[in-house]
This record gives sequence, structure tokens and C-alpha cells, in this order.
Amino acid sequence: MNKTYEKLEEYVQKLHALDAASVLFSWDMETYGSPKGAVANTAEDVGTLSSMTYDIINSPDLKSIVNELKGAVDLTEEQQCIVREIAKDIERMEKIPPKEYRDFSVLLAKAHPVWENAKKNNDYKSYAPVLKEIIDYTKRFISYRQKPGESVYETALDEYEPGFKEKDLEEFFSKLKKNLVPVVEKYGKRTDPEPDFMTTPVNIESQRALTYYIADYMGFDFNRGVIAEAEHPFTTNLHNHDVRITTHYYEDHWSFALFSTIHEGGHALYELGIDDSITMTNIGTGTSLGTHESQSRLYENNIGRGKAFWEAIYSEVCDRFLPHLKGVSLDDFYKGINYAKPTLIRTEADELTYPFHIMIRYEIEKLFLTENVDVMELPKIWNEKYKEYLGIVPSDDTTGILQDMHWCGGSIGYFPTYAIGTAVAAQIFHHMEKEIDIEGKLRAKDMNSIKEFLRENIHRFGKMKNTNEILMSMTGEGFNSDYYVNYLLNKF
Amino acid sequence: MNKTYEKLEEYVQKLHALDAASVLFSWDMETYGSPKGAVANTAEDVGTLSSMTYDIINSPDLKSIVNELKGAVDLTEEQQCIVREIAKDIERMEKIPPKEYRDFSVLLAKAHPVWENAKKNNDYKSYAPVLKEIIDYTKRFISYRQKPGESVYETALDEYEPGFKEKDLEEFFSKLKKNLVPVVEKYGKRTDPEPDFMTTPVNIESQRALTYYIADYMGFDFNRGVIAEAEHPFTTNLHNHDVRITTHYYEDHWSFALFSTIHEGGHALYELGIDDSITMTNIGTGTSLGTHESQSRLYENNIGRGKAFWEAIYSEVCDRFLPHLKGVSLDDFYKGINYAKPTLIRTEADELTYPFHIMIRYEIEKLFLTENVDVMELPKIWNEKYKEYLGIVPSDDTTGILQDMHWCGGSIGYFPTYAIGTAVAAQIFHHMEKEIDIEGKLRAKDMNSIKEFLRENIHRFGKMKNTNEILMSMTGEGFNSDYYVNYLLNKF
Repeated sequence: MNKTYEKLEEYVQKLHALDAASVLFSWDMETYGSPKGAVANTAEDVGTLSSMTYDIINSPDLKSIVNELKGAVDLTEEQQCIVREIAKDIERMEKIPPKEYRDFSVLLAKAHPVWENAKKNNDYKSYAPVLKEIIDYTKRFISYRQKPGESVYETALDEYEPGFKEKDLEEFFSKLKKNLVPVVEKYGKRTDPEPDFMTTPVNIESQRALTYYIADYMGFDFNRGVIAEAEHPFTTNLHNHDVRITTHYYEDHWSFALFSTIHEGGHALYELGIDDSITMTNIGTGTSLGTHESQSRLYENNIGRGKAFWEAIYSEVCDRFLPHLKGVSLDDFYKGINYAKPTLIRTEADELTYPFHIMIRYEIEKLFLTENVDVMELPKIWNEKYKEYLGIVPSDDTTGILQDMHWCGGSIGYFPTYAIGTAVAAQIFHHMEKEIDIEGKLRAKDMNSIKEFLRENIHRFGKMKNTNEILMSMTGEGFNSDYYVNYLLNKF
Repeated sequence: MNKTYEKLEEYVQKLHALDAASVLFSWDMETYGSPKGAVANTAEDVGTLSSMTYDIINSPDLKSIVNELKGAVDLTEEQQCIVREIAKDIERMEKIPPKEYRDFSVLLAKAHPVWENAKKNNDYKSYAPVLKEIIDYTKRFISYRQKPGESVYETALDEYEPGFKEKDLEEFFSKLKKNLVPVVEKYGKRTDPEPDFMTTPVNIESQRALTYYIADYMGFDFNRGVIAEAEHPFTTNLHNHDVRITTHYYEDHWSFALFSTIHEGGHALYELGIDDSITMTNIGTGTSLGTHESQSRLYENNIGRGKAFWEAIYSEVCDRFLPHLKGVSLDDFYKGINYAKPTLIRTEADELTYPFHIMIRYEIEKLFLTENVDVMELPKIWNEKYKEYLGIVPSDDTTGILQDMHWCGGSIGYFPTYAIGTAVAAQIFHHMEKEIDIEGKLRAKDMNSIKEFLRENIHRFGKMKNTNEILMSMTGEGFNSDYYVNYLLNKF
């Protein structure tokens, strides 16, 4: 092996271990593993680990190793990718002063419970100063990182979806607005209510059993993964042998845990499908948030809200977990799980209105990143935009601006990846249908063929290919949101 | 502040953060937070973190800072202790070659599930090679660390109970043998069985409720602590605002979870009682395993198996959690929870026979550390010693040599601290009785006075005082096992 590369490996191991520790600290906090009073002290430890990562990325030794390896000709493809990704990290990090980086990490660890309490008590005011601090840090970091010719928002987005341009987003969202606002309006006026069986209370134990059943059915490997509960469903991973998903059970909303599990299950299959050869390295994880979201959305919507998927298991699911659905026909069930009407909560939104929740957040992020909007004004702006695009107004901030944890986690520029991912899912699904008989497989309960197709074409590569490279080699074209718009128009 | 000390602080933070991460990885694994298949990869990350600790402790920069600070006159008492403890760590660590240190950490992380499976399947053979490796590493590390005039076993013990000598242990155990072997023999011959009510099945939910009740009653702070389940009860801590205990529920052995919780609760109160001023540092934790065990044993035995404690809560506990005890008098209950007879499992042993479980492990550790005993011989030796001291022989290795996780965690020389701790508990209790009316407090449900007394005299100091210093300033004398022997003779 290349001698210099051997030196790099030690750094790769350290970065992976520190990252795994951070993942574990978050997991522990968000799945109620740690006591409430621990936050302030633990935040210090998390901040320290984070500053150790920072120190490694910024160490002159690592920089010189990476510079030397950039030109090396005797590296494997995996090794080249590892070097390329570390070089990117160096470029991103070296511009942030160490103290600011650490302080920001500590701030974020402390912000989570502040947001959580604010959401619980509908108390935006208590959260606003923290949000302001987070926004200010983000703006400052963007000013350090911004490249010539790059817009402020592009720099923010680049953290999560490298290579996407603001004009791509603008084009995408304006296509959505033009084609789908009239449809959303139509659905907003519907008077037939969501079927009763969608809100019949189902006891938590049955829901939990259904969660495990459906994850297993999708191909989630319980030897390499676990399911837990959290305020907000999410997926996280230490490596390809430790992939964790959470859900949240609502007695009077059984479909939430079900579809959130299918969604997080899609994320999880991506991480479980990473190749063993790269898993303990910096390229051994999903390539971008958009591609990640494409996998979760593909399972949740294109598969999980489709008829063929349910044809195979509907009667078993009714028998074993949702006996109140006996007597509800598959057709009515299908309509029930696809009932669309503008609502307030993003994570509970139907497929049709979902992208508008994202668009609203995108527009607000642009506002507070590029114009000096007072954070105290944001709830008002939020509510106005909901009125404008979805025709409804939150009655409080808990169901309004406080609903998502992203900003409080420092993830600004992140939301658009949800919409990008959903569009990528449609593009991939469209292509996949040409390659394999998806409906036939679903009817035959053959979830494995689908998982293997995705693993072969997407999962196993980790960060070795970016979103556009994956799309090019799979579908023969780059990102194209037409498939998504057509899919929605066709379905609704 | 001393300028050099400021530089040290950064190292103290890093060491604390790395240590907290390791604690969290173990917690996660032992409370079934992580998937089974994660072990091998996660062990690599844990090994890497551990080698980062090693690198810090061995860094020339830290060494020169510590050397400079050793002579500094402008340090607070806390700062002096922090420097002293880091200096000790440096001295211990600098003798171990980095690769061996890291390999040993990886080995330990991988050993845990091997032991777990071996115990489950009564398959000592599958575990023996790993145990051999661990013993070999330990012997090698001892050979690096051993100081002139120090015996091999003393070097092992020094990891866990600094300052104790082999002759102290020998004297202690021979006193036990002389005074208590005849008593154990007598109890071994008793024919009256353990009362039925001790083994009446109690559903897990009631046991869990009792666990939370009793921890709360002791003064466990649920804002700064959590309780979870594990194969084997233990206590762990990230800092004084995050202290975690585990227990294990057996339906047909309700007293196990109850007394293990009182035991772990005693450990937890120690860590919760550490002063805020030292908690995020290397001296912000219990001073030694013996002193730690003194706190758990004091609560479990001297308090929790005493009559006054139960006089206050017995009827409530029966009403709310153990209805099958209605009709059992307090006197009979007291006899039930103090029923003594030689048994096979250390963690389930009564007070009288407990120290002999320790003595057996101590003698076996001395054997494999100082004589070349084949690991395959150990189960036989184990069983012979059980026959000799307790008059009983395990029918399998699961209830024999495989019962404890300590050796598989690399903790060799650790067991005697259990006996030391139990003896220290008796000494402290004897002294405390002179200072406060313990029985009166217990009858008045005043657990707080006891907790505060211990906090004032022991807990808050962390590692600022060692076991003997605590005993000297509290009781006016050093370690004295007579109180313990007398306590046992008196009770049994």
C-alpha cells in the first residue's frame, strides 16, 4: 500500500470514531437514554469531541498528507474517493476559526432541549434568541465559506446537497407552483373528510408490532439495526452494521408510525447497503441528503402508498395488527392512505401538499439568511406563507414554526433536500420500472429484488458517486424534476 | 489563573470527553441499545477512542505541562489533585506500547459478547481462548508497570484500589477464614428452606415500579439519572448530572431487582454527590472501587437489610408492589431477606457467604497471574474452591466460572475491592452511628440526612481524597476490617 496513504488511514479511523461517538450522543439524547438534567454538561463533552474533529481536519500533518495523495497514481478508487472527501472537509473547515466552531457545537447541543420545551409549551419567544444565535453563526460561517460566484443560499445548500445550484431549486419550485398550486387549491376545497378508519385509535402495542413487522418485511436487518422511539422519527448510523431508526406512536393516528417506519426504513436500507469495504471510512455513508431522501420517499410513497405493495400484505396486516380495518376494502384503504388535503404538519403531510411545506421553509431560510428579518417576525411570515400556498393558518406555533427540529440542529439549507429527494425518487422509480417488474415483485412479496436493485445501483457506493453521477449512470440523465411533477399530476 | 494550568485544562476536557464517549458506548451495548451484529465494527471505533486517550496521556506536551505544574505554588487544591491524578495516569500509561494498548481495547470490546454467549450456552471452551488472551495482556501490562518491591498481585490491585497491599488482603481474608468459615459451615447445614414468599413470582411491571419507588426513596435524582435493564446490574456515569443504573428483573426472584437497585443506588448517590466544581474533570468521580463499593454495600446491607429501614416502608411496599407479602410479618420478612446459606451466584449471595465468593476469585486471580495455570483448568479449580469454602459445587460453568463479566472486561485484581468495600461500609456505618441516629432517621423516613452525611464526608470529594484519607478524617483510623468481622459475627 502507498506509504502516505497508510498514514492517512489513522486519521480516517479517528474521524470515524469521533463521528460515531457524536452520533451515539445524539441518539442517546433523542431516544430518552440520558436524564434531562444532563444536557449542559454533556454538551460540553460533545463540543470537545467536535473540536477534536476540527483539530484533526485542520492539522498541518493531515493537510500535507492529503496534498501529497491528491496526485498519487497508486491509489484504489475507494482510496481516491476517501482522499477527495477529506480534502473537501479540509476546505470547508479551515475557514472557520476553532473557537467559533466549538462554541457552535456547544450551542447546538444546548439548543435541542430549548426547542423541545418551546414546542411543548407553544413558547416561540423562549426559543427565538437561540434560533437567532444559530442563524447568526450560520450566516457567519457562510461568509467564511462562500466561493466566488456562489449565492449565499447555495453555500448553505452545498453542506447537504453538493453541486445543486439555486437556479435548479428556483426552476424546480416554480414548476411545482405553476403545475400544482391549482391542484392543491382543488384538494383544499374538498369536503369529504378523511375516512374514520384512519383515525380509529389503535393501541401502542399493536402499532409497535406492526412497526417491527413492516421493517422486517422491507428487509431491515435486525442483526445490524434497531428501532427505538423518539419525539421525531429519524435514522442514524454508526456504520453498516449499526443502523438505527426511530418512530413515534400516536394512539389515534396509527398510520403515522407505519409510514414513518417505511420512510426511515428506506433510509436504513441505504445505510445497511453500504459496501463493507468502505463502511468504517468517511465515504461509507449516504452520498447526500437528497439521495438519502430519495430512498426513504421511494419506499414511503412510490412503493408504500401504492396499491401493489398492499395487495400482497393488506389482509395479513388487518388480521394481525389493525383488526378495525376488517371490512374496509383494499380500494378504500388505498384511498385512505392517499387522502390529500392541506394540513399544518410537514411530517404528516400527504404526497401532494408535501413539497409546499418544503418550499415555505426554503423561502423563509432565504429570507433570514439574506435579509435582516427579526426572528420574532418569523412566526408571522410562516403563517402568511401557509395561508398563501396551502390556504390554511396554524393556530399556534407548536403546529407552526416550532414543528421541525432542523434549524435548532443548525441545519439550515437542509429542507430543500427533502423536495430534491422526492423528485429523485420519482426519477429513479420511473427508471426502475423499465428494468424490473416492480408491481409484479410487490404482488409476489418479493421485496428483496427491489432492495437488491437499489443496493446494486445506489446503496453500495456510499459517497463514491454523487447524486448526479448516480442518476447519470442509472437513468442516463441528470436531475430532472419532470418525472416528479408528472407523477403527482397523474396521481392527483 | 496559572497560564500553564490553562493549557492543561484543554487536555482535561479532551480526556473527559473521550472517557464519556467510552462510557456511552459500553452503556449502549450493555443495555441492548445497539444491534448484536454491530460489535466488531464498533469495537474498532472504541479502540480508536481509547488509543486517542493513550496518545493524549503520552503526549510530550502534556508531560511537560504536568511536570511544570507539579511544582507550581499558585494552584487551588482541586487543581493540584487534577495534576496529581494525571501524573499517575501518565506513569501508568507510558509503559504500555501504543499498539498493545489499542489491541487490548479492541479485544475487550469484542470479548464481551463472546463471554455473554458462552455464559448463555454453558460453553466455557468458546470463551477460554479469549480469557487466555486477556490474562496474557494483563500479565504483560503488569510486567511493564510493576514497581520495585511490589508483588504482581499488588500491581494488578493498584489499578482499582491504590495503596492497598497484598499483605492487607491476606490478613483480611485470613481473619475472615478463621472467624467465619465455621459460621458458614453451620449455615450450610441448615435444613429450613428459604421462605416461600421470597420466590413467589412477581410480575415484571410491579418489580419495575418498585425499582423506581425504592430508588426515589433513597434520594436518586431522576433529573440527573436514569434506570435501565441489562444482563448484569451496574452503575455508570458521564458526570454528576448523568448517572445511570441498571437492574435485571427475574419474575421468580423479586428481591434481586430490589436489592440490586438499592446497591446500585448507593453507587449512584456517590456519583450524584460529586461536587459541581470537579465533575467534568478527571477527579470528578468516585475515588476508588473499594470506596465505591462501600457506598453500595452500606445501602444494600447495613441499611437495606436492616429492620429500621423496612419498619418505615414495609406496609406501603406490600400494598403497592408486593401484595403477596400481606400477612407476612415484618419479622418474618426481615428473616427472609437475610436468609443465609451458601449458594453459587455471587451477586445473589447473602451477606455472610458473600466475602467467600470474593476470596475464591482472589485466589484464582493470584493463581493465573503468578503461576502458569492452563485456562482450561480454571473451571475445575473454581469448583474445588467452592467445595472447600462454601461446601457446594456448581453443576455447570454458567453458574460457575462464567457468571461474572469482570475478567472478560479486563478487570483482573478488581474483585477484592468488593470485599474491601464491604468492610469499609461496616467501618463507616459503625462511625456514622455515633454521629447521627441512623435507626431513628430510617424509622422517620429521613433518607436525606444519611445521604447528606455521606455526601459531606465522602461523595463530594471525588478523587481528592483516597480511601484511607477518607477513613482517617471520618473515623480517625485507617482501614480496619474488625468492624466488618464483628458485624457479621453479631448478625449471624
